[in-house]
Amino acid sequence: MCRWLSYVGKSVFMDELLYQPDHSLVSQSKDATKAVTTVNADGFGLSWYGEKASPATYHEILPAWSDKNLKSIAEHTRSHCFLAHVRASTGATTSRENCHPFTWSKWSFMHNGQIPSFDRLRMGLEQHLDENWYLLRRGTTDSELLFLLLLQNGLDQNPQQAIYRTLEMVEQAISLKDIDEPFKACIALSDGKNILGVRYSSDGKPPTLFYKKKSGAVVMASEPYDESRAGWKNVPPQSLVEITDGSVSVTPLSVSDS
Amino acid sequence: MCRWLSYVGKSVFMDELLYQPDHSLVSQSKDATKAVTTVNADGFGLSWYGEKASPATYHEILPAWSDKNLKSIAEHTRSHCFLAHVRASTGATTSRENCHPFTWSKWSFMHNGQIPSFDRLRMGLEQHLDENWYLLRRGTTDSELLFLLLLQNGLDQNPQQAIYRTLEMVEQAISLKDIDEPFKACIALSDGKNILGVRYSSDGKPPTLFYKKKSGAVVMASEPYDESRAGWKNVPPQSLVEITDGSVSVTPLSVSDS
Amino acid sequence: MCRWLSYVGKSVFMDELLYQPDHSLVSQSKDATKAVTTVNADGFGLSWYGEKASPATYHEILPAWSDKNLKSIAEHTRSHCFLAHVRASTGATTSRENCHPFTWSKWSFMHNGQIPSFDRLRMGLEQHLDENWYLLRRGTTDSELLFLLLLQNGLDQNPQQAIYRTLEMVEQAISLKDIDEPFKACIALSDGKNILGVRYSSDGKPPTLFYKKKSGAVVMASEPYDESRAGWKNVPPQSLVEITDGSVSVTPLSVSDS
Amino acid sequence: MCRWLSYVGKSVFMDELLYQPDHSLVSQSKDATKAVTTVNADGFGLSWYGEKASPATYHEILPAWSDKNLKSIAEHTRSHCFLAHVRASTGATTSRENCHPFTWSKWSFMHNGQIPSFDRLRMGLEQHLDENWYLLRRGTTDSELLFLLLLQNGLDQNPQQAIYRTLEMVEQAISLKDIDEPFKACIALSDGKNILGVRYSSDGKPPTLFYKKKSGAVVMASEPYDESRAGWKNVPPQSLVEITDGSVSVTPLSVSDS
Repeated sequence: MCRWLSYVGKSVFMDELLYQPDHSLVSQSKDATKAVTTVNADGFGLSWYGEKASPATYHEILPAWSDKNLKSIAEHTRSHCFLAHVRASTGATTSRENCHPFTWSKWSFMHNGQIPSFDRLRMGLEQHLDENWYLLRRGTTDSELLFLLLLQNGLDQNPQQAIYRTLEMVEQAISLKDIDEPFKACIALSDGKNILGVRYSSDGKPPTLFYKKKSGAVVMASEPYDESRAGWKNVPPQSLVEITDGSVSVTPLSVSDS
Repeated sequence: MCRWLSYVGKSVFMDELLYQPDHSLVSQSKDATKAVTTVNADGFGLSWYGEKASPATYHEILPAWSDKNLKSIAEHTRSHCFLAHVRASTGATTSRENCHPFTWSKWSFMHNGQIPSFDRLRMGLEQHLDENWYLLRRGTTDSELLFLLLLQNGLDQNPQQAIYRTLEMVEQAISLKDIDEPFKACIALSDGKNILGVRYSSDGKPPTLFYKKKSGAVVMASEPYDESRAGWKNVPPQSLVEITDGSVSVTPLSVSDS
Repeated sequence: MCRWLSYVGKSVFMDELLYQPDHSLVSQSKDATKAVTTVNADGFGLSWYGEKASPATYHEILPAWSDKNLKSIAEHTRSHCFLAHVRASTGATTSRENCHPFTWSKWSFMHNGQIPSFDRLRMGLEQHLDENWYLLRRGTTDSELLFLLLLQNGLDQNPQQAIYRTLEMVEQAISLKDIDEPFKACIALSDGKNILGVRYSSDGKPPTLFYKKKSGAVVMASEPYDESRAGWKNVPPQSLVEITDGSVSVTPLSVSDS
Repeated sequence: MCRWLSYVGKSVFMDELLYQPDHSLVSQSKDATKAVTTVNADGFGLSWYGEKASPATYHEILPAWSDKNLKSIAEHTRSHCFLAHVRASTGATTSRENCHPFTWSKWSFMHNGQIPSFDRLRMGLEQHLDENWYLLRRGTTDSELLFLLLLQNGLDQNPQQAIYRTLEMVEQAISLKDIDEPFKACIALSDGKNILGVRYSSDGKPPTLFYKKKSGAVVMASEPYDESRAGWKNVPPQSLVEITDGSVSVTPLSVSDS
């Protein structure tokens, strides 16, 4: 089911969040506590923003805990905004192409959850894509497709609207095929300045999502990275989270399938 | 442009063909002589047939010359029929998913050449695929798509017809988009008993293709694997090669684009 | 702490043991039940014997559960004798060079356990090696060093004696440095015909080791590969196991450190 | 024989030197012109200095030209001092552990050349190492050993003296074993502020080495990274290069073997 962490605020060395906490994301790659799967070792990825508008990315198929490159990059690189993801595959191959975050232009995207019965829905959903977005497909995950659907639905113009349209598009496809299992989506999206979060499931029981305000920064993550859990707030199911200039707004998300 | 070798006949340890010759396929991965690109180091792959109807496969993103697993497998595994490929990317990522041979059921396929202006043709050609074939797509190469089009066009029922239909389908797509560059396809296809070869280019100038009869076996390859070149026969451009029970039949291939 | 499985007897497709059982070695790579570490995802390896005296080997740094090459090789390759290992690092890097089984000539070796305070013992133990064995060192694990010490101590001439000498050599080194933690070694060794097993710990509490007689074959493994556990016998601590021609002999192992 | 590039001066995005020039280091990985081997695809590595005293490192076994992580890191990361290396193995395995630059504390080191008949010299040279340096050995290359010998010989106290002592130590070992082939060493060493270069060979015919002064910076490399070659100066054989505060000093290097 994957685990992820997103950060925006004052510039920090990334290992302060990814390695140093006692229940850090890298330790969650081997031993997540709030996840359906405790092992998230089917690759990982990191996107971070620096001076340029577009993010840098690093994707690898090793378990995060054993990759020395990731450790060195995290220890030596400062960023004011970054997204990190450890993957537990729900079916698709372990390859760099299938590792989050997915990026385009200034945008970074990562996802925890799944589109149910994806084999029955994939072709139909991919046909919603215009050719320019269709050709960006590199792998076979439902997650990358969600990102391309967001782009198709106007992410670059109106992110909130694109999120609504994309969730509805997936729910409609599920409805048309009489699929019973729920669509689950815990999403982080960033343009390098703000972070948008989604905690959603068709059945109202999405994966966990938490955020924490720190001095000059906000972290949003699948689960708290410290054992104490001090200061972490639970995002309610069916919520849209908007993190801007250090403030966090959580609003109910209402998705219809018709 | 890639290099490949196919073998069918009496059972041999695969390294006899892949490593031992003085201009072996593995040495061609670093230093091909008859190719547009001399370095073929964007991954490699091997499919081989044993007791089962379906082939075993091994794909890796390292250059073939430095992979110890390949060497050990080739030294210790006998096969009566195998396909081996070293890749030089014409654009798509270096990933296992993009490494030949591609396989389905009893079939193995590999390719040297390219569909021109593939970004303009990819989406249209993929839409020719029925959902069962469409969902087999794992990577982003033109080569994997050619294999899926062959399956769509009845490879399992009538291979020769499937080859004609597929070449025509690609030529028609090129023609519709007014693309000037030629479609190039040197293909090996096997069901574990017979090997089919294609040497084709829209402009009549396909990549090289050679075959050689050995005692109890036939080899077909992009270029001879020995410096002496003794016994190697050149396959003429625009040919279909059929290797069955030790005999080789070469017939002209006539493809129309309308 | 690693998990491993060894097999000798009638020729079988390796996936019958490595994948098909409900608690197979590959499933143990994610979820071992009798181990200190439940995740064994720091690489894996396989050595198998066929027609040649030396074994074929396959080593990879991916978790075993996500490697398609391993699955295809195991499904298509028969062997009468093979060793398979999934690794949980006790410190050394995740690299192919650090993956078991280690091999030389006809010999294969794999290990679960550890030499305690290895940084304090490594240099001294490596200086016991003659240059011909010293130069075979490829990685940095205590396990590879144990194999080289076995070779140094005459594995090829008298395997049982080499095992005694090697365990004693390590115990002496530990004793000289006043190291308190125990040396733990569950070892499988094969020449392609017979398998030798060791279940040993300085403190009499070694990792688990089991064997099972099947029709025409014997399996020895870190833990049973089926949930039912029917037919599996526990190897007592401080034992030497000798599997020859389908019979299993278990004898007490008495190691002195002086 | 490897190719490398080192840079020190005003902070730049690393891709300006590694990718953008028409004969960049990354293009040299496929097509070096002044090297014994034209293909340098047995892994690569990068170390760069930022705010911390120690360098960040990135090592990978893919050919440099096909690694998207390297491209993204180079495009988005500024550094005032970095070392980059593309490897052509002279025997040792393709593994991350065998990729340059090797680092310790603030030091980075990379090498083009080789210790001749290394199998005959390796054990003796490794025995010159004190245990603290011996235990840093991760791979099996002659290059990593040269770096450890430099540390053993006081790199951190007196780099120039450590270079002399190390070259002499290797020459003495060669002399003792009556080895005829030359020791070749083009070396770059950095502490994050200055760069030291060595162009040396026992026979006075070392691999090429060039440097170029740019506005506010100096580059030293195995070969010029632009076709025009404007401004590049050839370092004479048997030279020590010291790059400090934008100035370059080249002094003759006189090594005795007794």
